[in-house]
Amino acid sequence: MRYAVLGTGEVGRTLGGKLVALGHEVTLGSRTGDSPAALEWVRETGGGAGTFAQAAAAAEVVVNAVGGRVALAALEAAGAEHLAGKVVVDVSNPLAFEDGRVRLDPVEADSVGEQLQRAFPHARVVKTLNTVNCQVMVDPARVPGEHVLFVCGADADAKAQVTALLGEFGWPAERVLDLGGIEGSRAVEMWLPLWLTLMQRFGHPDFNLELRRAR
Amino acid sequence: MRYAVLGTGEVGRTLGGKLVALGHEVTLGSRTGDSPAALEWVRETGGGAGTFAQAAAAAEVVVNAVGGRVALAALEAAGAEHLAGKVVVDVSNPLAFEDGRVRLDPVEADSVGEQLQRAFPHARVVKTLNTVNCQVMVDPARVPGEHVLFVCGADADAKAQVTALLGEFGWPAERVLDLGGIEGSRAVEMWLPLWLTLMQRFGHPDFNLELRRAR
Repeated sequence: MRYAVLGTGEVGRTLGGKLVALGHEVTLGSRTGDSPAALEWVRETGGGAGTFAQAAAAAEVVVNAVGGRVALAALEAAGAEHLAGKVVVDVSNPLAFEDGRVRLDPVEADSVGEQLQRAFPHARVVKTLNTVNCQVMVDPARVPGEHVLFVCGADADAKAQVTALLGEFGWPAERVLDLGGIEGSRAVEMWLPLWLTLMQRFGHPDFNLELRRAR
Repeated sequence: MRYAVLGTGEVGRTLGGKLVALGHEVTLGSRTGDSPAALEWVRETGGGAGTFAQAAAAAEVVVNAVGGRVALAALEAAGAEHLAGKVVVDVSNPLAFEDGRVRLDPVEADSVGEQLQRAFPHARVVKTLNTVNCQVMVDPARVPGEHVLFVCGADADAKAQVTALLGEFGWPAERVLDLGGIEGSRAVEMWLPLWLTLMQRFGHPDFNLELRRAR
């Protein structure tokens, strides 16, 4: 498959590198297309780099790996015409440091997943992966147990396609829980404050939640 | 121990009944003190009933089991003089239905746990138990696995006392994670949207999260 991964931070480079290693054709998208981080990633992985628009235009599937606070701007730069009809995988969280605390915005009454779907109604947005660290995203065996991921979005075929991609990453389908429509993004984005608190307590990000139930 | 359990809803009646069964002296507190729900609980359990103030005055430990949206009002009715120096266990979530959706308020920049501690600076507020259904609160074996609870609050002795109480309920101390100060209430209250989404998906509330980690 031809993937665009938007964002040259740790999340984008990690997801992009894994996709290249899996044999996919990957363009790492960024504002300028030739930042030092992008060019280093190209040297290391053999993938390609380009602007947000170049990456999205070339891709069958677009992965949003920029921060949630700037996701709308990045997808606008990618161009609605390059997103229409495509699966857009949103792995972002709208986190930022404010006054020494990590804050989440939008929150509760809205979410990044919903913002993106509203702004690009012809894209097939699927929210997933935002609940774990990027190393765990692409290598779930780093963490023992039957820990889980979530997917949500309006388009069942898009969710099935993303679940298959998660399978390539190492996540069995039975550990990928479908939470319904894209409004489920609120719930998974609001997991982040607890995730951050636990990361501080554990001293590392190699953890995840397993759901235990009576039946 | 002498407990006040504030609230005659399912959470209050369940926690109060468990405390009576464990041999504690329990007063179920409510606005009027003699509501039908309170009197039925008294008949069923052998516990006592009273107003919020009567219950709190008689107690060594106060459990807030009214809804998070009305918790401040209930504790004000209980009276700051009946809370001073005492452990106040806050198990509430600030949920309400608005326009057909479950909403959380306060959220993100504040929490019920923090509101209560600010309003009653001489109380020793500990947030816990709000992350599971009330049947699971008092009978963790309903759910298989090493699933967990959280405690947070400023007072280490109060948290140790609450952790011991959770042990009486059946929660081993190693499954009770200390998240630090009362501001951790934000994180555990923001778990609720995901909890509610999962409850709808599973069709029942007998579940909880287990944390899996690499080390």
